[in-house]
Amino acid sequence: MIQENKNTSALEEKEGVSKPETLSKKVASFVKKSRRKSPSTQQLTDALLAKDKTALSRAITIIESTAPKHQEQAKKIIEACLPHANKSIRIGITGVPGVGKSTFIEEFGKLLISKNKKVAILAVDPSSSLSRGSILGDKTRMEDLVKEPNAFIRPSASGDSLGGVARKTRETIILCEAAGFDTIIIETVGVGQSETAVHSMTDFFLLLKLAGAGDELQGIKRGIMEMADAIVINKADGENKKAAKFAKTEFNRALHLYPPKESGWSPKTLTCSALKNEGIEDVWELITSYISETTENDYFPKKRKEQNKFWLLQTIESRLKSDFYENEIVKKELEKQLKLINSNETSPFEAAQLLLNLNK
Amino acid sequence: MIQENKNTSALEEKEGVSKPETLSKKVASFVKKSRRKSPSTQQLTDALLAKDKTALSRAITIIESTAPKHQEQAKKIIEACLPHANKSIRIGITGVPGVGKSTFIEEFGKLLISKNKKVAILAVDPSSSLSRGSILGDKTRMEDLVKEPNAFIRPSASGDSLGGVARKTRETIILCEAAGFDTIIIETVGVGQSETAVHSMTDFFLLLKLAGAGDELQGIKRGIMEMADAIVINKADGENKKAAKFAKTEFNRALHLYPPKESGWSPKTLTCSALKNEGIEDVWELITSYISETTENDYFPKKRKEQNKFWLLQTIESRLKSDFYENEIVKKELEKQLKLINSNETSPFEAAQLLLNLNK
Repeated sequence: MIQENKNTSALEEKEGVSKPETLSKKVASFVKKSRRKSPSTQQLTDALLAKDKTALSRAITIIESTAPKHQEQAKKIIEACLPHANKSIRIGITGVPGVGKSTFIEEFGKLLISKNKKVAILAVDPSSSLSRGSILGDKTRMEDLVKEPNAFIRPSASGDSLGGVARKTRETIILCEAAGFDTIIIETVGVGQSETAVHSMTDFFLLLKLAGAGDELQGIKRGIMEMADAIVINKADGENKKAAKFAKTEFNRALHLYPPKESGWSPKTLTCSALKNEGIEDVWELITSYISETTENDYFPKKRKEQNKFWLLQTIESRLKSDFYENEIVKKELEKQLKLINSNETSPFEAAQLLLNLNK
Repeated sequence: MIQENKNTSALEEKEGVSKPETLSKKVASFVKKSRRKSPSTQQLTDALLAKDKTALSRAITIIESTAPKHQEQAKKIIEACLPHANKSIRIGITGVPGVGKSTFIEEFGKLLISKNKKVAILAVDPSSSLSRGSILGDKTRMEDLVKEPNAFIRPSASGDSLGGVARKTRETIILCEAAGFDTIIIETVGVGQSETAVHSMTDFFLLLKLAGAGDELQGIKRGIMEMADAIVINKADGENKKAAKFAKTEFNRALHLYPPKESGWSPKTLTCSALKNEGIEDVWELITSYISETTENDYFPKKRKEQNKFWLLQTIESRLKSDFYENEIVKKELEKQLKLINSNETSPFEAAQLLLNLNK
């Protein structure tokens, strides 16, 4: 647990010293309150590394904050966590709203906990308000899991840009791993670009589907299917069972049309019913066989290295752009140059050259 | 025509001056040759603006060259051409190998020429050698068109990066327009990223398809169908006619699943047989009605402006990146930082920050 000073007010710290008469109860309570909210970075990190979930939550909040003060703190926390990170299995799960992601993750998470795993569930959702609510924001959907001491559920990181959200999520993974979580599940809604980001930070990518609905109707972009290491057809129960089995065959056929993966792994299709808790164990078995196969052929560590490189370059490039476009001189000239281009007085390439010279 | 000096050797320029005895025939012929190859930039531009196709070809070669000397020349040529550019209809045509692109473009081009158009046909193909040969490289496929004085055919611009190829193609469009070509056709193979690039430099985007083959089999990426302003099902002849008609209905239905376009234009599906020269006229009518509709609702000029902006930003961003990664100090440190990331001693975000500071 976070160590908090036993004294309840800054003004009562020294035993035997009588309180000044001017002590305002309001001020005292304010000091006390802000104190409790802000353990030192060191305290927070120690508690996190001692596997305290409250500390983990607080640390993530600091990482998500855009306040400069917090960013300095965040840097220290990550530095302290890094040596303890990287020791987990990271699973990306995607599927459109209605596919039963929450129910699936709840059952899947409970299964993992019964196997003595420590499970952290994060969500990436930089998309518009359209899809909001379908993702972890609504924690109550995982009623059982949320009570488990070995589960940690963190709703969607907020942020303006996908890049920002992705950075926060990746750093959150580091924190979760340092706090002892050995299985990280990252959820997305499967309708936007965020899947590429999640794919770039996970070891295994699972696509949840329904039987009987075409890709168009499910709103899943084709690229996402190409990324999947497994397709799991959910709601394979009751009258749906037959359709699910048929869909399994269909998807298997579709998966074979894609070129072989660098991992050497051929994506598999499974059916399950999260509602009836059927087939969930098979999913886990599939993932473990993936892990052992790709560990054996050295793809697992190789992929993590590639992901590190990807995020390094990604961060560099987005910063290069923002630095350029936020340069006041560039901003002004950009407008001018656009007008000149539109009146055929310069070409986009000529104008680009001019603007780049201004930025030097 | 390009004005060439009537004197045939640099050593024979002054009338009445006798040749030095040491005149080597080899040297004289070399001087003469290189002379003929290099008219001055001014001469070249003048000839180009006077609608000389040889000058146009030479100017494009200069634009495609990576030699610094040529880049300086290229800049001047483009500057001179810009005021005369922008007055054409730019049509993108894509389709996988085997769909009959060359035959279609040949018939389509001949039709346009019969309508007193001046047609330039360019190709974008930055993809691997896999698809090479399927695209204009093989000029002989357009036997009739290549002989037409009002047609100009230019095979695929070469280049290492899509960005480079795209820049060259866009500048080539400017040159063609300045040389009096009023209809520019840009061909791609429909299997890579180049379609997005071509879509960003054309007014109308046409997708050629075959009947009876699924998207997977045709290798067309879904995004490409979303970009299409028209789908033309080729080889709608003989026994294929019925299947083509059926495919037309199918594609029409598929097109309706996409959200409405900003242009206000609803993409249409047509059938044709380039081989039998049937249905080609309909394609042209469709394009002209697109042009008049989008000119009326002001989308046509708006799109061109947006394209200009896109290319401006695109050029800036790719240059920012190349400048960064080619910085020697950055190059060295990047390797170091990657190692530190992989040994968990730093995070990609931390490392990015450090490298960006080095670049300043």
